[in-house]
Amino acid sequence: MYIDLTQTFTDSMPVYPGDEQSHLTHVNFFESDKYNNYKIISGMHVGTHIDGPMHLTNSPLFLSDINLDSFIGKGCLIDVAGQKKIRWDESYNQIIQEGFIVLIYTGHSRHFGSPEYLKDYPDMDPAFAEKLIDLKVKMVGIDTLSPDFAPHEIHKMLLSNHILIAENLTNLEKLININSFEVIALPLKVKADSGPARIIARVLS
Amino acid sequence: MYIDLTQTFTDSMPVYPGDEQSHLTHVNFFESDKYNNYKIISGMHVGTHIDGPMHLTNSPLFLSDINLDSFIGKGCLIDVAGQKKIRWDESYNQIIQEGFIVLIYTGHSRHFGSPEYLKDYPDMDPAFAEKLIDLKVKMVGIDTLSPDFAPHEIHKMLLSNHILIAENLTNLEKLININSFEVIALPLKVKADSGPARIIARVLS
Repeated sequence: MYIDLTQTFTDSMPVYPGDEQSHLTHVNFFESDKYNNYKIISGMHVGTHIDGPMHLTNSPLFLSDINLDSFIGKGCLIDVAGQKKIRWDESYNQIIQEGFIVLIYTGHSRHFGSPEYLKDYPDMDPAFAEKLIDLKVKMVGIDTLSPDFAPHEIHKMLLSNHILIAENLTNLEKLININSFEVIALPLKVKADSGPARIIARVLS
Repeated sequence: MYIDLTQTFTDSMPVYPGDEQSHLTHVNFFESDKYNNYKIISGMHVGTHIDGPMHLTNSPLFLSDINLDSFIGKGCLIDVAGQKKIRWDESYNQIIQEGFIVLIYTGHSRHFGSPEYLKDYPDMDPAFAEKLIDLKVKMVGIDTLSPDFAPHEIHKMLLSNHILIAENLTNLEKLININSFEVIALPLKVKADSGPARIIARVLS
Protein backbone atom coordinates (compact mmCIF):
# COMPACT_ATOMS: atom_id res chain seq x y z
CA MET A 1 0.00 0.00 0.00
CA TYR A 2 1.18 3.49 -0.86
CA ILE A 3 0.38 6.81 0.80
CA ASP A 4 0.83 9.96 -1.27
CA LEU A 5 2.63 12.66 0.73
CA THR A 6 2.56 15.12 -2.19
CA GLN A 7 0.46 18.27 -2.58
CA THR A 8 -1.28 18.45 -5.96
CA PHE A 9 0.38 21.00 -8.24
CA THR A 10 -2.37 23.30 -9.52
CA ASP A 11 -2.49 26.63 -11.30
CA SER A 12 -1.67 29.59 -9.03
CA MET A 13 -0.97 27.42 -5.99
CA PRO A 14 0.65 29.24 -3.04
CA VAL A 15 4.36 29.99 -3.29
CA TYR A 16 7.00 30.95 -0.72
CA PRO A 17 6.34 34.56 0.33
CA GLY A 18 8.20 36.88 -2.07
CA ASP A 19 8.68 34.25 -4.77
CA GLU A 20 7.13 34.65 -8.22
CA GLN A 21 3.67 33.13 -8.67
CA SER A 22 3.69 29.75 -10.44
CA HIS A 23 1.31 28.72 -13.20
CA LEU A 24 0.00 25.49 -14.72
CA THR A 25 -2.01 26.41 -17.78
CA HIS A 26 -4.05 24.38 -20.26
CA VAL A 27 -2.47 25.31 -23.62
CA ASN A 28 -3.60 22.62 -26.07
CA PHE A 29 -7.13 21.28 -26.19
CA PHE A 30 -8.30 17.84 -27.33
CA GLU A 31 -11.32 19.17 -29.20
CA SER A 32 -9.48 21.76 -31.30
CA ASP A 33 -5.83 20.59 -31.25
CA LYS A 34 -6.51 16.79 -31.12
CA TYR A 35 -4.46 16.55 -27.90
CA ASN A 36 -4.24 18.11 -24.47
CA ASN A 37 -1.11 19.73 -23.08
CA TYR A 38 -0.37 22.00 -20.14
CA LYS A 39 2.44 24.48 -19.55
CA ILE A 40 4.18 24.90 -16.21
CA ILE A 41 5.95 28.08 -15.17
CA SER A 42 7.45 27.67 -11.73
CA GLY A 43 10.40 28.09 -9.44
CA MET A 44 11.93 25.00 -7.84
CA HIS A 45 10.48 25.68 -4.37
CA VAL A 46 6.75 25.50 -5.10
CA GLY A 47 4.50 22.77 -3.73
CA THR A 48 6.09 19.53 -2.59
CA HIS A 49 9.79 19.72 -3.47
CA ILE A 50 13.28 18.75 -2.35
CA ASP A 51 15.96 21.28 -1.46
CA GLY A 52 19.40 20.28 -2.70
CA PRO A 53 22.71 21.52 -1.28
CA MET A 54 23.06 24.29 -3.89
CA HIS A 55 19.93 26.05 -2.62
CA LEU A 56 21.55 27.64 0.43
CA THR A 57 25.22 26.70 0.32
CA ASN A 58 27.98 27.21 -2.23
CA SER A 59 27.89 23.51 -3.20
CA PRO A 60 28.64 22.78 -6.87
CA LEU A 61 26.17 19.85 -6.87
CA PHE A 62 23.03 20.18 -8.93
CA LEU A 63 20.01 18.16 -7.79
CA SER A 64 20.54 15.97 -10.88
CA ASP A 65 23.99 15.04 -9.48
CA ILE A 66 22.62 13.55 -6.26
CA ASN A 67 22.72 9.74 -6.01
CA LEU A 68 19.36 7.93 -6.15
CA ASP A 69 20.14 6.24 -2.81
CA SER A 70 19.66 9.63 -1.16
CA PHE A 71 16.00 9.74 -2.21
CA ILE A 72 14.79 6.36 -0.96
CA GLY A 73 15.05 4.84 2.48
CA LYS A 74 13.36 3.51 5.57
CA GLY A 75 11.16 6.21 7.01
CA CYS A 76 10.09 7.28 10.48
CA LEU A 77 7.59 9.80 11.77
CA ILE A 78 8.27 12.33 14.50
CA ASP A 79 4.97 13.68 15.81
CA VAL A 80 5.33 17.28 17.05
CA ALA A 81 1.72 18.33 16.37
CA GLY A 82 0.68 21.24 18.57
CA GLN A 83 4.23 22.36 19.37
CA LYS A 84 5.44 25.82 18.39
CA LYS A 85 9.07 24.71 18.34
CA ILE A 86 10.43 21.43 17.00
CA ARG A 87 12.63 20.35 19.92
CA TRP A 88 14.67 17.20 20.39
CA ASP A 89 13.32 14.60 22.76
CA GLU A 90 15.47 11.73 23.98
CA SER A 91 12.76 9.25 22.91
CA TYR A 92 13.60 10.06 19.28
CA ASN A 93 16.85 8.14 19.70
CA GLN A 94 14.70 4.98 19.68
CA ILE A 95 12.91 5.99 16.47
CA ILE A 96 15.56 7.48 14.19
CA GLN A 97 18.34 5.35 12.74
CA GLU A 98 21.27 6.07 10.42
CA GLY A 99 20.19 6.40 6.78
CA PHE A 100 16.54 7.05 7.64
CA ILE A 101 14.27 9.59 6.02
CA VAL A 102 12.78 11.48 8.95
CA LEU A 103 9.29 12.93 8.48
CA ILE A 104 8.18 15.62 10.90
CA TYR A 105 4.44 15.85 11.42
CA THR A 106 3.40 19.28 12.65
CA GLY A 107 -0.19 19.24 11.37
CA HIS A 108 0.41 22.60 9.68
CA SER A 109 -0.52 21.19 6.23
CA ARG A 110 -4.19 21.51 7.20
CA HIS A 111 -3.73 25.23 6.44
CA PHE A 112 -2.32 24.60 2.92
CA GLY A 113 -3.87 27.06 0.48
CA SER A 114 -4.83 29.61 3.14
CA PRO A 115 -2.80 32.66 4.29
CA GLU A 116 -2.19 30.94 7.66
CA TYR A 117 -0.07 28.32 5.90
CA LEU A 118 2.53 30.93 4.96
CA LYS A 119 3.27 32.15 8.49
CA ASP A 120 3.60 31.03 12.10
CA TYR A 121 4.67 27.49 11.28
CA PRO A 122 6.77 25.70 13.89
CA ASP A 123 10.50 25.87 13.27
CA MET A 124 13.30 23.52 14.28
CA ASP A 125 15.58 24.03 17.24
CA PRO A 126 19.27 23.87 16.18
CA ALA A 127 19.86 21.08 18.71
CA PHE A 128 17.36 18.94 16.79
CA ALA A 129 19.24 19.53 13.53
CA GLU A 130 22.52 18.65 15.29
CA LYS A 131 21.07 15.30 16.33
CA LEU A 132 19.92 14.55 12.77
CA ILE A 133 23.45 15.29 11.58
CA ASP A 134 24.95 13.07 14.31
CA LEU A 135 22.55 10.27 13.36
CA LYS A 136 23.46 10.63 9.63
CA VAL A 137 19.91 10.63 8.30
CA LYS A 138 19.40 10.93 4.52
CA MET A 139 16.61 13.42 4.41
CA VAL A 140 14.21 15.41 6.57
CA GLY A 141 10.67 16.01 5.36
CA ILE A 142 8.14 18.39 6.86
CA ASP A 143 4.50 19.42 6.29
CA THR A 144 5.29 23.15 6.33
CA LEU A 145 7.01 25.64 4.00
CA SER A 146 10.35 25.21 5.75
CA PRO A 147 11.98 23.88 8.93
CA ASP A 148 13.18 27.42 9.69
CA PHE A 149 12.78 31.13 8.96
CA ALA A 150 15.31 33.49 7.34
CA PRO A 151 18.34 33.47 7.52
CA HIS A 152 17.73 29.69 7.28
CA GLU A 153 20.47 28.45 9.57
CA ILE A 154 18.77 25.03 9.93
CA HIS A 155 18.75 24.63 6.14
CA LYS A 156 22.45 25.47 6.01
CA MET A 157 23.32 23.04 8.82
CA LEU A 158 21.43 20.17 7.17
CA LEU A 159 22.40 20.82 3.55
CA SER A 160 26.08 21.30 4.35
CA ASN A 161 25.96 17.88 6.07
CA HIS A 162 24.47 16.05 3.06
CA ILE A 163 20.94 15.94 4.46
CA LEU A 164 18.27 16.80 1.89
CA ILE A 165 15.13 18.70 2.92
CA ALA A 166 11.63 17.89 1.63
CA GLU A 167 9.04 20.61 2.14
CA ASN A 168 5.27 21.10 1.80
CA LEU A 169 4.41 17.46 2.52
CA THR A 170 0.87 16.38 3.29
CA ASN A 171 -0.99 13.34 4.67
CA LEU A 172 1.66 12.71 7.35
CA GLU A 173 -1.10 11.93 9.87
CA LYS A 174 -1.79 8.77 7.85
CA LEU A 175 1.58 7.42 8.98
CA ILE A 176 0.97 7.80 12.72
CA ASN A 177 -0.11 4.21 13.29
CA ILE A 178 2.07 2.62 10.63
CA ASN A 179 4.73 0.40 12.14
CA SER A 180 7.23 0.33 9.26
CA PHE A 181 7.39 2.23 5.98
CA GLU A 182 9.75 3.22 3.20
CA VAL A 183 9.86 6.76 1.78
CA ILE A 184 10.31 7.17 -1.96
CA ALA A 185 11.00 10.88 -2.55
CA LEU A 186 11.81 11.33 -6.22
CA PRO A 187 12.49 14.84 -7.52
CA LEU A 188 12.63 15.70 -11.20
CA LYS A 189 16.16 15.16 -12.50
CA VAL A 190 16.66 18.90 -12.98
CA LYS A 191 20.02 20.57 -13.48
CA ALA A 192 19.03 23.06 -10.78
CA ASP A 193 19.60 23.70 -7.08
CA SER A 194 16.41 21.91 -6.01
CA GLY A 195 13.31 20.54 -7.66
CA PRO A 196 9.65 19.59 -7.47
CA ALA A 197 9.13 16.01 -6.36
CA ARG A 198 6.65 13.16 -5.97
CA ILE A 199 7.00 11.88 -2.44
CA ILE A 200 5.23 8.74 -1.26
CA ALA A 201 5.38 6.20 1.54
CA ARG A 202 5.27 2.47 0.94
CA VAL A 203 3.80 0.70 3.93
CA LEU A 204 5.97 -2.28 4.89
CA SER A 205 4.11 -3.50 7.99
CA MET B 1 20.78 -0.93 -6.40
CA TYR B 2 18.96 1.65 -8.48
CA ILE B 3 19.33 2.51 -12.17
CA ASP B 4 18.18 5.96 -13.28
CA LEU B 5 16.12 5.73 -16.49
CA THR B 6 15.54 9.51 -16.59
CA GLN B 7 17.04 12.07 -18.96
CA THR B 8 18.45 15.10 -17.14
CA PHE B 9 16.20 18.14 -17.57
CA THR B 10 18.41 20.98 -18.79
CA ASP B 11 17.83 24.41 -20.26
CA SER B 12 16.70 24.29 -23.90
CA MET B 13 16.62 20.50 -24.08
CA PRO B 14 14.98 19.04 -27.21
CA VAL B 15 11.19 19.06 -27.32
CA TYR B 16 8.64 17.21 -29.45
CA PRO B 17 8.77 18.70 -32.97
CA GLY B 18 6.36 21.64 -33.14
CA ASP B 19 6.10 22.07 -29.35
CA GLU B 20 7.27 25.26 -27.65
CA GLN B 21 10.91 25.26 -26.46
CA SER B 22 11.30 24.59 -22.73
CA HIS B 23 13.60 26.50 -20.40
CA LEU B 24 15.30 25.96 -17.05
CA THR B 25 16.86 29.24 -16.03
CA HIS B 26 19.01 30.28 -13.07
CA VAL B 27 17.02 33.19 -11.57
CA ASN B 28 18.39 33.64 -8.05
CA PHE B 29 22.09 33.52 -7.21
CA PHE B 30 23.71 32.53 -3.93
CA GLU B 31 26.31 35.30 -4.04
CA SER B 32 23.87 38.19 -4.60
CA ASP B 33 20.49 36.82 -3.42
CA LYS B 34 21.81 34.55 -0.60
CA TYR B 35 20.09 31.55 -2.25
CA ASN B 36 19.91 29.78 -5.59
CA ASN B 37 16.67 29.17 -7.44
CA TYR B 38 15.80 28.12 -10.99
CA LYS B 39 12.67 28.68 -13.06
CA ILE B 40 11.17 26.05 -15.32
CA ILE B 41 8.98 26.89 -18.30
CA SER B 42 7.86 23.71 -20.01
CA GLY B 43 5.08 21.67 -21.53
CA MET B 44 4.22 18.31 -19.99
CA HIS B 45 5.81 16.27 -22.81
CA VAL B 46 9.44 17.35 -22.51
CA GLY B 47 12.22 15.01 -21.43
CA THR B 48 11.30 11.89 -19.49
CA HIS B 49 7.56 12.07 -18.79
CA ILE B 50 4.38 10.02 -18.44
CA ASP B 51 1.40 10.42 -20.76
CA GLY B 52 -1.90 10.19 -18.92
CA PRO B 53 -5.25 9.29 -20.49
CA MET B 54 -6.29 12.93 -21.00
CA HIS B 55 -3.40 13.53 -23.41
CA LEU B 56 -5.00 11.86 -26.42
CA THR B 57 -8.47 10.76 -25.33
CA ASN B 58 -11.47 12.59 -23.89
CA SER B 59 -10.84 11.13 -20.43
CA PRO B 60 -11.75 13.41 -17.51
CA LEU B 61 -8.82 12.04 -15.44
CA PHE B 62 -5.96 14.38 -14.66
CA LEU B 63 -2.57 12.78 -14.04
CA SER B 64 -2.99 13.75 -10.36
CA ASP B 65 -6.09 11.52 -10.23
CA ILE B 66 -4.22 8.34 -11.20
CA ASN B 67 -3.68 5.83 -8.38
CA LEU B 68 -0.09 5.41 -7.17
CA ASP B 69 -0.30 1.66 -7.87
CA SER B 70 -0.24 2.50 -11.58
CA PHE B 71 3.24 4.01 -11.30
CA ILE B 72 5.09 1.18 -9.54
CA GLY B 73 5.37 -2.45 -10.50
CA LYS B 74 7.50 -5.38 -11.53
CA GLY B 75 9.33 -4.48 -14.71
CA CYS B 76 10.49 -6.37 -17.78
CA LEU B 77 12.63 -5.40 -20.74
CA ILE B 78 11.76 -6.11 -24.36
CA ASP B 79 14.89 -5.76 -26.50
CA VAL B 80 14.04 -4.60 -30.04
CA ALA B 81 17.35 -2.84 -30.72
CA GLY B 82 18.06 -2.59 -34.43
CA GLN B 83 14.46 -3.15 -35.52
CA LYS B 84 12.61 -0.48 -37.53
CA LYS B 85 9.21 -1.73 -36.32
CA ILE B 86 8.33 -2.91 -32.82
CA ARG B 87 6.58 -6.21 -33.62
CA TRP B 88 5.15 -8.81 -31.30
CA ASP B 89 7.11 -12.01 -30.87
CA GLU B 90 5.58 -15.06 -29.22
CA SER B 91 8.56 -15.27 -26.86
CA TYR B 92 7.32 -12.10 -25.16
CA ASN B 93 4.46 -14.13 -23.65
CA GLN B 94 7.10 -15.67 -21.37
CA ILE B 95 8.43 -12.26 -20.30
CA ILE B 96 5.38 -10.03 -19.81
CA GLN B 97 2.87 -10.67 -17.02
CA GLU B 98 -0.30 -8.93 -15.89
CA GLY B 99 0.41 -5.72 -13.97
CA PHE B 100 3.95 -5.37 -15.31
CA ILE B 101 5.63 -2.19 -16.45
CA VAL B 102 7.02 -3.07 -19.87
CA LEU B 103 10.17 -1.24 -20.99
CA ILE B 104 11.01 -1.31 -24.68
CA TYR B 105 14.68 -0.95 -25.48
CA THR B 106 15.23 0.36 -29.01
CA GLY B 107 18.65 1.94 -28.47
CA HIS B 108 17.35 5.18 -29.97
CA SER B 109 18.23 7.16 -26.81
CA ARG B 110 21.87 7.21 -27.95
CA HIS B 111 20.73 9.98 -30.34
CA PHE B 112 19.16 12.10 -27.54
CA GLY B 113 20.07 15.75 -28.07
CA SER B 114 20.80 15.38 -31.78
CA PRO B 115 18.39 15.98 -34.70
CA GLU B 116 18.34 12.22 -35.43
CA TYR B 117 16.56 11.65 -32.11
CA LEU B 118 13.49 13.52 -33.34
CA LYS B 119 12.85 11.40 -36.43
CA ASP B 120 12.99 7.85 -37.78
CA TYR B 121 12.49 6.18 -34.43
CA PRO B 122 10.95 2.71 -34.49
CA ASP B 123 7.18 2.67 -33.96
CA MET B 124 4.94 -0.01 -32.52
CA ASP B 125 2.85 -2.39 -34.58
CA PRO B 126 -0.83 -2.28 -33.49
CA ALA B 127 -0.75 -6.04 -32.85
CA PHE B 128 1.93 -5.42 -30.18
CA ALA B 129 -0.30 -2.85 -28.46
CA GLU B 130 -3.23 -5.30 -28.62
CA LYS B 131 -1.16 -7.89 -26.78
CA LEU B 132 -0.19 -5.38 -24.07
CA ILE B 133 -3.89 -4.61 -23.61
CA ASP B 134 -4.76 -8.33 -23.47
CA LEU B 135 -2.02 -8.87 -20.89
CA LYS B 136 -3.28 -5.93 -18.78
CA VAL B 137 0.10 -4.28 -18.23
CA LYS B 138 0.25 -1.08 -16.15
CA MET B 139 2.57 1.00 -18.23
CA VAL B 140 4.76 0.92 -21.32
CA GLY B 141 8.05 2.82 -21.33
CA ILE B 142 10.25 3.52 -24.32
CA ASP B 143 13.60 5.19 -25.06
CA THR B 144 12.20 7.30 -27.93
CA LEU B 145 9.90 10.33 -28.26
CA SER B 146 6.85 8.14 -28.75
CA PRO B 147 5.71 4.59 -29.56
CA ASP B 148 4.01 5.94 -32.70
CA PHE B 149 3.73 8.81 -35.17
CA ALA B 150 0.71 11.08 -35.78
CA PRO B 151 -2.24 10.41 -35.62
CA HIS B 152 -1.02 8.43 -32.59
CA GLU B 153 -3.33 5.43 -32.83
CA ILE B 154 -1.07 3.37 -30.53
CA HIS B 155 -1.28 6.07 -27.86
CA LYS B 156 -5.07 6.05 -28.14
CA MET B 157 -5.28 2.25 -27.93
CA LEU B 158 -3.09 2.11 -24.82
CA LEU B 159 -4.44 5.17 -22.99
CA SER B 160 -8.08 4.20 -23.56
CA ASN B 161 -7.25 0.83 -21.99
CA HIS B 162 -5.73 2.31 -18.81
CA ILE B 163 -2.12 1.75 -19.87
CA LEU B 164 0.15 4.71 -19.17
CA ILE B 165 3.02 5.59 -21.54
CA ALA B 166 6.48 6.69 -20.38
CA GLU B 167 8.61 8.39 -23.04
CA ASN B 168 12.20 9.56 -23.48
CA LEU B 169 13.71 6.95 -21.19
CA THR B 170 17.44 6.31 -21.12
CA ASN B 171 19.89 3.69 -19.77
CA LEU B 172 17.60 0.79 -20.73
CA GLU B 173 20.64 -1.17 -21.93
CA LYS B 174 21.70 -1.41 -18.27
CA LEU B 175 18.71 -3.67 -17.65
CA ILE B 176 19.55 -6.25 -20.33
CA ASN B 177 21.26 -8.68 -17.97
CA ILE B 178 19.17 -7.95 -14.91
CA ASN B 179 17.05 -10.91 -13.89
CA SER B 180 14.38 -9.14 -11.85
CA PHE B 181 13.62 -5.47 -11.26
CA GLU B 182 10.91 -3.11 -10.12
CA VAL B 183 10.10 0.11 -11.96
CA ILE B 184 9.28 3.21 -9.91
CA ALA B 185 7.93 5.80 -12.36
CA LEU B 186 6.76 8.79 -10.37
CA PRO B 187 5.40 11.81 -12.23
CA LEU B 188 4.81 15.16 -10.60
CA LYS B 189 1.33 15.26 -9.09
CA VAL B 190 0.17 17.82 -11.65
CA LYS B 191 -3.45 18.65 -12.38
CA ALA B 192 -2.67 18.24 -16.07
CA ASP B 193 -3.04 15.65 -18.83
CA SER B 194 0.48 14.26 -18.36
CA GLY B 195 3.63 15.24 -16.52
CA PRO B 196 7.40 15.13 -16.21
CA ALA B 197 8.60 12.18 -14.14
CA ARG B 198 11.54 10.56 -12.37
CA ILE B 199 11.71 6.99 -13.55
CA ILE B 200 14.06 4.47 -11.99
CA ALA B 201 14.58 0.73 -11.76
CA ARG B 202 15.26 -1.05 -8.47
CA VAL B 203 17.25 -4.20 -9.08
CA LEU B 204 15.69 -7.12 -7.19
CA SER B 205 17.98 -9.94 -8.33
